[in-house]
Amino acid sequence: MSRADVSTHLFGKIYLLGTGLMGGSLALDLKERGLVEKVVGSDMEPQRSDHALAIGILDEVQPMLPEVVQSCDLVILAVPALSLREVLKGGFQKDTLVTDVGSVKGDAVKGYREAVQAGRGYRYVPGHPIAGDEKSGPDAARRGLFDGARVILTPVDASDEDISAVTRMWEGVGARVMIMDPDEHDQVFAWVSHMPHMAAYAIVDSVLTRDPGLVDLSGGGLRDYTRIAASSPRMWADIAVANRKELLAATKGLQNAVQGIVSALEEGDRDRLESIFERIALVRRSRI
Amino acid sequence: MSRADVSTHLFGKIYLLGTGLMGGSLALDLKERGLVEKVVGSDMEPQRSDHALAIGILDEVQPMLPEVVQSCDLVILAVPALSLREVLKGGFQKDTLVTDVGSVKGDAVKGYREAVQAGRGYRYVPGHPIAGDEKSGPDAARRGLFDGARVILTPVDASDEDISAVTRMWEGVGARVMIMDPDEHDQVFAWVSHMPHMAAYAIVDSVLTRDPGLVDLSGGGLRDYTRIAASSPRMWADIAVANRKELLAATKGLQNAVQGIVSALEEGDRDRLESIFERIALVRRSRI
Repeated sequence: MSRADVSTHLFGKIYLLGTGLMGGSLALDLKERGLVEKVVGSDMEPQRSDHALAIGILDEVQPMLPEVVQSCDLVILAVPALSLREVLKGGFQKDTLVTDVGSVKGDAVKGYREAVQAGRGYRYVPGHPIAGDEKSGPDAARRGLFDGARVILTPVDASDEDISAVTRMWEGVGARVMIMDPDEHDQVFAWVSHMPHMAAYAIVDSVLTRDPGLVDLSGGGLRDYTRIAASSPRMWADIAVANRKELLAATKGLQNAVQGIVSALEEGDRDRLESIFERIALVRRSRI
Repeated sequence: MSRADVSTHLFGKIYLLGTGLMGGSLALDLKERGLVEKVVGSDMEPQRSDHALAIGILDEVQPMLPEVVQSCDLVILAVPALSLREVLKGGFQKDTLVTDVGSVKGDAVKGYREAVQAGRGYRYVPGHPIAGDEKSGPDAARRGLFDGARVILTPVDASDEDISAVTRMWEGVGARVMIMDPDEHDQVFAWVSHMPHMAAYAIVDSVLTRDPGLVDLSGGGLRDYTRIAASSPRMWADIAVANRKELLAATKGLQNAVQGIVSALEEGDRDRLESIFERIALVRRSRI
């Protein structure tokens, strides 16, 4: 590759840990759009590393060793929440720029802070792209996943330059970037994402408990929830535990709301039900 | 219209009560596909009758009087559940063929049986098309709504000829018809449709209670639920009350399932959460 080409890259070589839907899609887009020169990396499941190489997500499979990472301009961590925290806690060299795509940010920042305290601090810009679906693994990766998506960065002590570099990377793949405090991020997403996901599990679970055969009879109603509930169990168990405190508050909020409907149903109070539904329906209509 | 044209119709003139999404869409398709010659009818909200006439759902606005209905080959009732029961209970002339598009069938059949007991019985083929979305009213009506949809008929003492005529009508607009017992229908739909809908209300309600501003920050997670929860409050209050007993059982099933997740969260039991999620996710994967 000529020198002129290289100069248009945002980063030269990057290291990608985790080649699933998020990491794989990001690597494909970063290369396709010329934002990075080369992607080396690995997956925590070795057979996935080889597959990611075969389908063009990785240019080279390399273990995440200090000498490999040292030669990279950016490290992208795209692993489930609890592994993410362990990797962040393990630390990197001082001048290594690290970002991630995890859905829980307070827990990730804790891992980073533990590394700092142990004298293994690095340049860290935490990120959370709001994208993806129930699919997982390298084969689910696809170009354009982040087009129009929102990405939230939750830096705690990164430099403006580093925040700007990671911002330009996301904007380069079509995303809109916003900055939030990590704890505020986790509170918000406990309510707007993690709790609704737990609710989808609970809906499908209750139907299965009643009669698994009912699932085949589902029209539009249940089908949406079985799709949501088909997401990676490992990823969601990690999210649930990593954001446990906020998620518990949100799930208890859900329980209260369900109880409100159950009470109105028990009393057969049609007008109260309609006024509850009307109040809720208004939210959407006022935003269309 | 020539005699030859008329002979290709399944029904000549039909009476449509209710010109919203379901009734309006059915009328448009029945006329477009030449299955009926003429649609007269009305809406319980008078201004909607006129609008339905203006946009071609109705060919004539006519009140649902005995002399009007008597000249029709079929009556389609497309009104919310509680109104439906009242109309069915009111009765028709003995030779009038009546069908409906209500989501709750036990309650509708009760209305019909009350009419029979009062000596006002008629030819009744209860129906439930599994179609529609959160929109409502005549303007939401559209051609092709029932293409590929499932329609469930729950006849109790209709003749084979009448069941067959209503079946051909639905097949004529692209639907697949199945027959079920009305009580079994209501049990099934309490779990696969009505309870999941209550859950969507509860999810959005709990977020609103926490902070209405959160709705604007929702990514894919909450947005699906705000869409579902934007459905007609009147229709859903009617459904909830008409299928109250089964819906209560299903909603209590939901509460148990949510509690199972809350307990695992409280104990921070990651592996139990993953095994719960895995069991639920398998359902969908086994069906793809």
